[in-house]
Amino acid sequence: MALFGLFSGKKKTSAAAAKERLQILISHERQNRNGPDFLPDLQRDILAVVKKYVAVRDDHVSIRLDRAGDASVLELNVTLPEN
Amino acid sequence: MALFGLFSGKKKTSAAAAKERLQILISHERQNRNGPDFLPDLQRDILAVVKKYVAVRDDHVSIRLDRAGDASVLELNVTLPEN
Repeated sequence: MALFGLFSGKKKTSAAAAKERLQILISHERQNRNGPDFLPDLQRDILAVVKKYVAVRDDHVSIRLDRAGDASVLELNVTLPEN
Repeated sequence: MALFGLFSGKKKTSAAAAKERLQILISHERQNRNGPDFLPDLQRDILAVVKKYVAVRDDHVSIRLDRAGDASVLELNVTLPEN
């Protein structure tokens, strides 16, 4: 799966592991590269949905969009507030 | 990132690669395993959001929920209709 190869170099530090976090990865593999790319809009909507369930501060969200060949990968990392 | 280790054994066949597809992975790392798990509800809402952008047939969606330690990982695989 293309999704995994892109991020396989990442490691989680033990300090970071102690935090409560939510990570959302969306991979869209297209047959036609010139077709519509709805990932940026989808990202906005998904973040709105996540906020129904947990209090998310906008400055605790990091978003990355990568394109590789016919695949677009959107990564949202959210650090959740401690209770 | 726990997300990647869980699925690293998967390989995409070249036949499958020709399809247009959307994959959504949600990883929730919790400090307290007994806290609320909102992933099943979040999954339903995200699928509803995805349907705003693409025609998704329910029988073209596969959903898997894994729990490993303090992390829950939800995987949605959607095969999109060919245009």
